Amino acid sequence: MAAKFFSERNLKFLLYEVFDVISLTKLDYYKDHNKKMFDMVLDAAAKLAKKLLFPLFEEMDRTSPELVDGAVKVHPQVPEILKQFGEGGWITISKPPEHGGENLPLMIADSCNYIFSAANYSAVVYPGLCTGASHLIESYGDKELYRTYIPKMHEGKWQGTMALTEPQAGSSLTDIESSAEPTVDGHYKIKGQKIFISAGDHNGVENVIHLMLAKIKGAPAGVKGISLFVVPKKRPAENGELIPNDVVTSGIYHKLGYRGAPIAQLSFGDADNCFGFLVGEPHKGLIYMFQMMNEARLNVGLAATAIAGAAYQASLDYCKKRKQGRNIGQKDPFQSQIPIIEHADIKRALLFQRAIIEGSHSLLLQCCLYADLAKALEGQEQEKNELLLDLLTPVAKSYPSEMGILAVSQGLQCLGGSGFCDDYPLEQYYRDMRIHPIHEGTTAIHGMDILGRKVLMKNGKALQLFHEELQNTISLAETIPELSRFAQQLNCALGQLTEVTQFLLKIAGSKGPEMFLADATLYLELFGIITIAWQWLKQGITVQQVTNQECSKKDKDFYQGKLYTMRYFYSYELPKHQPLAKRLLECDGLTVEMMSSFFND
Amino acid sequence: MAAKFFSERNLKFLLYEVFDVISLTKLDYYKDHNKKMFDMVLDAAAKLAKKLLFPLFEEMDRTSPELVDGAVKVHPQVPEILKQFGEGGWITISKPPEHGGENLPLMIADSCNYIFSAANYSAVVYPGLCTGASHLIESYGDKELYRTYIPKMHEGKWQGTMALTEPQAGSSLTDIESSAEPTVDGHYKIKGQKIFISAGDHNGVENVIHLMLAKIKGAPAGVKGISLFVVPKKRPAENGELIPNDVVTSGIYHKLGYRGAPIAQLSFGDADNCFGFLVGEPHKGLIYMFQMMNEARLNVGLAATAIAGAAYQASLDYCKKRKQGRNIGQKDPFQSQIPIIEHADIKRALLFQRAIIEGSHSLLLQCCLYADLAKALEGQEQEKNELLLDLLTPVAKSYPSEMGILAVSQGLQCLGGSGFCDDYPLEQYYRDMRIHPIHEGTTAIHGMDILGRKVLMKNGKALQLFHEELQNTISLAETIPELSRFAQQLNCALGQLTEVTQFLLKIAGSKGPEMFLADATLYLELFGIITIAWQWLKQGITVQQVTNQECSKKDKDFYQGKLYTMRYFYSYELPKHQPLAKRLLECDGLTVEMMSSFFND
Repeated sequence: MAAKFFSERNLKFLLYEVFDVISLTKLDYYKDHNKKMFDMVLDAAAKLAKKLLFPLFEEMDRTSPELVDGAVKVHPQVPEILKQFGEGGWITISKPPEHGGENLPLMIADSCNYIFSAANYSAVVYPGLCTGASHLIESYGDKELYRTYIPKMHEGKWQGTMALTEPQAGSSLTDIESSAEPTVDGHYKIKGQKIFISAGDHNGVENVIHLMLAKIKGAPAGVKGISLFVVPKKRPAENGELIPNDVVTSGIYHKLGYRGAPIAQLSFGDADNCFGFLVGEPHKGLIYMFQMMNEARLNVGLAATAIAGAAYQASLDYCKKRKQGRNIGQKDPFQSQIPIIEHADIKRALLFQRAIIEGSHSLLLQCCLYADLAKALEGQEQEKNELLLDLLTPVAKSYPSEMGILAVSQGLQCLGGSGFCDDYPLEQYYRDMRIHPIHEGTTAIHGMDILGRKVLMKNGKALQLFHEELQNTISLAETIPELSRFAQQLNCALGQLTEVTQFLLKIAGSKGPEMFLADATLYLELFGIITIAWQWLKQGITVQQVTNQECSKKDKDFYQGKLYTMRYFYSYELPKHQPLAKRLLECDGLTVEMMSSFFND
Repeated sequence: MAAKFFSERNLKFLLYEVFDVISLTKLDYYKDHNKKMFDMVLDAAAKLAKKLLFPLFEEMDRTSPELVDGAVKVHPQVPEILKQFGEGGWITISKPPEHGGENLPLMIADSCNYIFSAANYSAVVYPGLCTGASHLIESYGDKELYRTYIPKMHEGKWQGTMALTEPQAGSSLTDIESSAEPTVDGHYKIKGQKIFISAGDHNGVENVIHLMLAKIKGAPAGVKGISLFVVPKKRPAENGELIPNDVVTSGIYHKLGYRGAPIAQLSFGDADNCFGFLVGEPHKGLIYMFQMMNEARLNVGLAATAIAGAAYQASLDYCKKRKQGRNIGQKDPFQSQIPIIEHADIKRALLFQRAIIEGSHSLLLQCCLYADLAKALEGQEQEKNELLLDLLTPVAKSYPSEMGILAVSQGLQCLGGSGFCDDYPLEQYYRDMRIHPIHEGTTAIHGMDILGRKVLMKNGKALQLFHEELQNTISLAETIPELSRFAQQLNCALGQLTEVTQFLLKIAGSKGPEMFLADATLYLELFGIITIAWQWLKQGITVQQVTNQECSKKDKDFYQGKLYTMRYFYSYELPKHQPLAKRLLECDGLTVEMMSSFFND
């Protein structure tokens, strides 16, 4: 297996050169931080990833969780992973000091997360869910819930989960049926079924704390009647003893990939003895849960990028070492074979991977920056950053997930037959990747989210801000001769996005929501391509600004690689916006009018 | 698991309505056949697939081959599969009577193969390799080889293989090192290593017969020195006894998918006691092997289409049964949920699958028709059909392989989380599919084949014939009002293909072969899209010709589905040719000039 699973050089290029994370420390909110601390944190993350997570990457896949006598058995190192994440403060790293954290910018915290996910995605899910689930209690829970659950979750001794999906509802949260009946003691009696619950149960922790959506008896129908509960696997008695709370694992899934983490089917309250504890106010569960879902969506995009990045490193390593064939036109069999990285088509495949991965990575840090600024600023500036983050979350979740699959597939292809076999890690990356367009909202859901909700919110203000962001980058690039043609290309594409958006908004008025949203998935794809082109232009500007400076041969090569990859994106990927825009402007109702009976064979 | 794994209606639509396979029986060569016989053969194939192959689909994946004490253990039903294929005449079905066959048109034989592959691809590989390997001996071997090996291979008692790939050579056959030293007894002493040999060894047969490439000592360097040998695992003594022939299985691969078939690493002649028997003349091995490779390439395209078709059926079945959500705009939670097939985005995903699968299927039958006509005709007509088959083989191999992966992925996506779990067959189809762009020449190899060889052969005559074929279809479609806009669209795309081809041929002259072939993979993709658009227009013409006739509601729905799927292809897929053509016309040497040192991080 390749020893390298992420590019530190690229990570630091994005953090320090493109996004200038240091400038955050000028803000009051982040004033206690500095570059030295950031570097230390990143180094510590890389060490943990190399020492603990990466060595378990293959093993956790091969010895996947099993349900034995009602207990979910996971890899014996899971408790160690949770312990080290708890003790090392990784679970709370971006939280404020009052919640045990360091208040680190998300740009740094998520960069650590990127490194961990690249090393071993399944392993990251355990502590990652502790972070998100505890954040919900910190934000909306009362002191009693905080005192009872938070310390253990921060230590990694109790597993957190998000328990949303139900068998009869799937993505349609309106149809949630889990019920909560108030008791005179203040808690609720919970009944219901949940499916696809990541880390939903396992023997690596003392307890599992579900942040669960359910409906209080008599609540309004639909999403307006959903409340959020803490439902522990074992409820702590006053003496601290843990009492079984009538939560039963009815099954775990055997999955294509992402096999190191257990995904459970859970049954709550079969014996009418399952206690739930309301978080915040009744009927506001979905609003609360969106905090965790939005964080989780960025994490999915990040993990998809990280996995594709690790696959790229393994693929690159192979292409440098594997000798096969000769230059085209060189027919002399006595000449020795050359490393396959010398073949143009292999370089194309590697450039494709880089274009997707480094473009996605850049977008994710862009989103982290918006989140960091939204936390630190106030008023209009805060609103601006929040709106941009909201608008781009479906893109940052879906583009890396969808395109990352193709990137890993190209990585696998570079290895030929070896890529298909488990002597190399590519086949595992290929399997692990496939979950990302599915969980935390399928790509179709995100298509409808961006077009049906995000583009419309606040009278289109988010989209207008996005337009301004791109225009700023384009204006700057136009002043740099080497970049002006890319600036023009992006400008044209942005113009087309605007045209398509306006056209579709008119359709919404004239032909109704079904026609409006029929090709929302394509709209999301179009939006993604243009967003990533923008991120590449930003990287290009950074490179052009430093190339006049003295730098090492290694740095020069790195910057040249960046420019070629940007060029690649603009030649091979950005032009794909055209057929998408063309199709969106047709809007002939093809998929709306196609009858299900026409699929009769 | 869905009970249906292929669409008989679609298969017969293509065979009888679009390609009119019956008209072949007017030719002398096929005069003994008729529709009744064709139907009987297809029914028998479907029965065998349903009774024997499909029930083993999952099980053969879960109990994949293992190397135990030097023996490769496969599923206990493998001998039964080979026996039934042997006894049923399936191994020889398309061969002439003198080789035990029925002389069936390839269109019918490959339709059977399609059904088998849809049911259980791994299972088909065993008898399929017997067919191809024995065909090589029939074509080029002497009577002694024929007498010794053919009957057992036709009966499915001895496994055939094609043994090409070596560890140090991979796709670069120039660098084959396996050696053959002539002996005074007439046979050769073989030494060498082969990797990735499908069905290369297993305990389901008495013997394994390798059709192996090796170089006779003193042969010219490179491909011109390659000869073809029969190298049995056990060599038959004069008394019929089987003597071990010093062929050792040094390993088998653990693979992402296609797990029901063993892929072996083989070592020949470690004890200097491996006999090989020359097939045909010395140094002509590669030319001979191309017969088997070309057949195998069509079979890969066919299997990719069949697997994607089976995945589509499973996906369709789920989408019809699974209820989730409501029509867009319908917010009333008291309304019951609807089957997800009613959602426009699900219909889009299903149409995408159909567009790829039924378009690919049509192309494969088109290639079979060319092969059938080439066999039955003479002179110019024979040459024409051979040239078209040669030109389209890389397309028919690669388009279904590459696009089929995306089709299966969309099929999996329709199931959401369930698609990722092994309770449904989608995750297996997703794994099984991934081999196809790799084996029998990677997509990159086929890109170079079509642009660097096929387009150039006979002064571009094949391409000119292809152009005429498309023009004929376009002219016919132009006379049908409902189709004229599609005809125009295809005509434009074809014009662009011509422009790109002429441009690249000039580049070949002015800038050399590396620049010429740098984006050959994109050229192949462009060629593929246009070829499939042509196949859809042919289907559209057929439908328009029958829609005025009386037909059942079921047939009407089927034909409507065809028209919608054709429209889908022309709206969503064909326009993708534009960015490809744009890129190919740039030809700026991006991937040629990108230095490998720029990939330093």
